[in-house]
Amino acid sequence: MKLKKITVVGVGLIGGSFAKGIKEAGLVEEVSGFGHNESNLKKAVELGVLDTYSTDIAEAVKESDLVMLGVPLGAMSSVLESMKPHLKSSVILSDVGSSKMSVIEAVKEVFGELPPNFVAGHPIAGKEKSGVEAATSDLFVDHRVILTPTAETSIEALQVVENLWKALGANVVSMDPGYHDEVLAATSHLPHLLAFSLVELLNEHPELGNVFQYTAGGFRDFTRIASSDPVMWRDIAVNNSEAIAKWLRHYQQSLTELITMVEQKDSDSLYHLFNEAKQARDLHIVNKD
Amino acid sequence: MKLKKITVVGVGLIGGSFAKGIKEAGLVEEVSGFGHNESNLKKAVELGVLDTYSTDIAEAVKESDLVMLGVPLGAMSSVLESMKPHLKSSVILSDVGSSKMSVIEAVKEVFGELPPNFVAGHPIAGKEKSGVEAATSDLFVDHRVILTPTAETSIEALQVVENLWKALGANVVSMDPGYHDEVLAATSHLPHLLAFSLVELLNEHPELGNVFQYTAGGFRDFTRIASSDPVMWRDIAVNNSEAIAKWLRHYQQSLTELITMVEQKDSDSLYHLFNEAKQARDLHIVNKD
Repeated sequence: MKLKKITVVGVGLIGGSFAKGIKEAGLVEEVSGFGHNESNLKKAVELGVLDTYSTDIAEAVKESDLVMLGVPLGAMSSVLESMKPHLKSSVILSDVGSSKMSVIEAVKEVFGELPPNFVAGHPIAGKEKSGVEAATSDLFVDHRVILTPTAETSIEALQVVENLWKALGANVVSMDPGYHDEVLAATSHLPHLLAFSLVELLNEHPELGNVFQYTAGGFRDFTRIASSDPVMWRDIAVNNSEAIAKWLRHYQQSLTELITMVEQKDSDSLYHLFNEAKQARDLHIVNKD
Repeated sequence: MKLKKITVVGVGLIGGSFAKGIKEAGLVEEVSGFGHNESNLKKAVELGVLDTYSTDIAEAVKESDLVMLGVPLGAMSSVLESMKPHLKSSVILSDVGSSKMSVIEAVKEVFGELPPNFVAGHPIAGKEKSGVEAATSDLFVDHRVILTPTAETSIEALQVVENLWKALGANVVSMDPGYHDEVLAATSHLPHLLAFSLVELLNEHPELGNVFQYTAGGFRDFTRIASSDPVMWRDIAVNNSEAIAKWLRHYQQSLTELITMVEQKDSDSLYHLFNEAKQARDLHIVNKD
């Protein structure tokens, strides 16, 4: 299947990096963008992210062979509604949202069923920075992109989306959308919420005053993800709430056990816990520091 | 007060970096080291960290004008006991331990009282790496060193220790030892324990399998401190247990509120929390990324 025009709806860091990679690789004739902020779209053209743009959704998706949704999870439904009347019947729809069940639900609701040409996806790439200025064509190189096809998904559409991500250097895997949401709740959503919570707890705490002045590199690294976009994270928390709440509760249970060890000065259990964690991290994240 | 000989007891990253800085600055005639592992001490001499060393504590602290304790918190008491008979009466004692009340208690127990020439201290410098191989003379440049003098501490001894740290480029502040332990429990011990706990929770969790393969930069940064030395952290958890348990409970309370927000899909409260945290981090840690 030869694509002529791709439209990226929501041209931020992820959508913009996808667009820029496709454009630089010369994979299609036209990479178009849609958004509400015209100056952002103009900048995207200047930065080599887009060929064309429109703030009119009908114009932006017109004759498009593939529409990639890069909008926040909270905007998925309304964006889908607005583009629906203007899509080619053969269009392939995909997205980069951080939770997949909620996007699949939104698509099902808007279209009345899951269109076979809809392929839900999620690139696992750093997102502390945001905005099209931070977009780079190599953002996905050697990064995982998770696709979550359902029983309804056409093999051909899945292949097209997979090949695009592979062309950008990504390491593509497919998994069940529910499993995706659990895995991401545990490995991404949970740590982000933990980091936000720690910074908020310590921020001008009445007992301590400004303690940030006494922090060093460890705190800086631990809390880096607390500089992420609060709108995006609000949307993730709301759209993957069940899995996130579950993993927050699992984590609270771990902390309950930890508090007991600390209060009882249980050296052996503390050493065991810290050593197991260090071994696991050194083993699995070894080449990533 | 002119110092001729300084002895560093426990020549790892912190003790070694202190020794190397003192030696490179030519502040004393002899920088000596003590430890149990002779090959480590030999390496320290080769790396320009020490002038001399001994595995005999009597020899190592003999004629020393200042002894800097760089051993794990769990070894403080026994090391103090073993060196006590061999110390010059005028010796200045200091340390780099991560909790201060427990070190002060140990000194009081071993000496029967707090010697006026004892100055408890704690450099706030990154400690994921360990070992003398990682020691650098500039480790403390622009880093905080917290000294925690008590009513018994001699002004002169305090001044000497402060001047040494300043000579290494550190930004020295004094505070109450109890306040130090609270601040460090909140800003350092808490995040370290949170990171260890998260990695341990996710390590081969029966519901998810190996999820580390789906993590990216955010997880890597968040868990970097979980690669820290488990012995050191066991000792910190045991030696500052009261303050750490207290802050773990504060944090659990924050998580309880967060879980409610997530379960209720309370967008406004979630946005408020994430935004406040982001603002605080961007404000206070702004120049540290």
